[in-house]
Amino acid sequence: MDEFALIDRIVAILGERAGGEGVLLGPGDDAALVAVPPGFDLAVTTDTLVAGRHFPPDAPGDLVGERALGVNLSDLAAMGAEARYCVVALTAPEPDVPWIEAFARGLADAAARHRVAIVGGNLARGPLCVSVAAHGIVAGGQALTRSGARPGDRVYVSGALGVGHSARLAEDPRFYRVEPRLDLGAALRGVASAAIDISDGFVSDLRHLCTASGVGAEIDLQAVPVCPEVDARTALACGDDYELLFTAAELPPLDATVYAVGTIVAGERVTVLEAGRPLDLDPAGPRGFRHFE
Amino acid sequence: MDEFALIDRIVAILGERAGGEGVLLGPGDDAALVAVPPGFDLAVTTDTLVAGRHFPPDAPGDLVGERALGVNLSDLAAMGAEARYCVVALTAPEPDVPWIEAFARGLADAAARHRVAIVGGNLARGPLCVSVAAHGIVAGGQALTRSGARPGDRVYVSGALGVGHSARLAEDPRFYRVEPRLDLGAALRGVASAAIDISDGFVSDLRHLCTASGVGAEIDLQAVPVCPEVDARTALACGDDYELLFTAAELPPLDATVYAVGTIVAGERVTVLEAGRPLDLDPAGPRGFRHFE
Repeated sequence: MDEFALIDRIVAILGERAGGEGVLLGPGDDAALVAVPPGFDLAVTTDTLVAGRHFPPDAPGDLVGERALGVNLSDLAAMGAEARYCVVALTAPEPDVPWIEAFARGLADAAARHRVAIVGGNLARGPLCVSVAAHGIVAGGQALTRSGARPGDRVYVSGALGVGHSARLAEDPRFYRVEPRLDLGAALRGVASAAIDISDGFVSDLRHLCTASGVGAEIDLQAVPVCPEVDARTALACGDDYELLFTAAELPPLDATVYAVGTIVAGERVTVLEAGRPLDLDPAGPRGFRHFE
Repeated sequence: MDEFALIDRIVAILGERAGGEGVLLGPGDDAALVAVPPGFDLAVTTDTLVAGRHFPPDAPGDLVGERALGVNLSDLAAMGAEARYCVVALTAPEPDVPWIEAFARGLADAAARHRVAIVGGNLARGPLCVSVAAHGIVAGGQALTRSGARPGDRVYVSGALGVGHSARLAEDPRFYRVEPRLDLGAALRGVASAAIDISDGFVSDLRHLCTASGVGAEIDLQAVPVCPEVDARTALACGDDYELLFTAAELPPLDATVYAVGTIVAGERVTVLEAGRPLDLDPAGPRGFRHFE
């Protein structure tokens, strides 16, 4: 099967997920054409998964497709955007047609679940690697960013940390089934002062948010929700959770459970307190527990 | 230098090219935010370059950056779109900082030349590979597609074929300096009935256009502009030219030189005539001279 026939197969598997609301022209031309409703901004992000680094080289295609979409949509969730359009660039060695078809099915399933369209892509021979560029819409000026946290804001996370990490260690398919917090992100527009998704790790991503906002934070370790499979210190450092980490001065009732874990403070120091005493977060340098990753 | 420090370096090198008209939020958050003016559609495309396949593994970073942007913008040119925003996903082995800095400079130079912003990206360790997703705006309903060619339309190309191919063989840096025909693409809105850029090769891309339009074509080999370094048959088959191939019922005066090379006909057959006799285009199968690539 040559490149073009394989692309036709992929598009056939995507089926109606190759189109959708706002899609004026889907896969098959030099570019896709999409609409952005008047009064809305477009959020654009890209994230890459490399075989042997972000997933095992023998991972099933459908799971890789699901994860590739999920991690990108998580970035849109952190912006409070409504996920809409994706393009997918896949490089794969000497075409393994069943694997690529499974990849397309995984992509289509995740796209259906999150109501996004796969409007185009690229297929090339190369090391197994997938880059997705994901697009979401958000009412003008309403996007959440990392830079709005202010001293006195409370710090929240949207779920238990360590789930993705322990799924990875256990080779559990849930590792691939990233559930981007799109509904929560949307509910946080006009509520959260800053937001980020936890991909690198809680402390690392909290530092990104604090740096962008020009503030520090004080976290109470005992308030941080941690899944049973990992200890609290690992949970602070491991990535792959794709929960939202956000700040807010006041939180109205939300449909989702969120956990208050600390407070934004003046300065630039991020402190985690265990029974009132600060943990040493920096054994590996200023970014926190990066040596765990 | 860790991943985040390297990203900071890249963004510093991009400088003002990390922003620009319509860029509401550039690199550094979970996603970029861009504006699409009311009444405009957004064209979205993605294309990947893999070391060892699309460029030599020892190619200079600046040239790879230039080419990665150029080939993507060429797809926007073929849609008649105005290039605006790009995100860039780079995977590279154990960070070669000078190479990555050169890559960022090449990207910035090309972005400045074509007036586009690099609004975000991703950096990961992996085999050397770059995927760009490029975005352009085009007045609602005015985009050029592959599907509008009608029998009787003339077929045009925007420049000599074989230039990219011979530059590649000669290891000439011009191979990397793809000049997307953005101005011509814009001038063809409302003029061309169909358009495509020549990346796979003249015959192959003409077939894509004809298939999308449900038509055939008759090309006069002697009318096809060919660079001195290659013979006419190679020029029909080799890719890498990134000229526009388009059809039009009538052509007003244009600022750019274009070459009339044939006519769209009913049916689905693409024929190239040499002194009135059809060439055998299919030694390697229905896609034309793909074995040359």
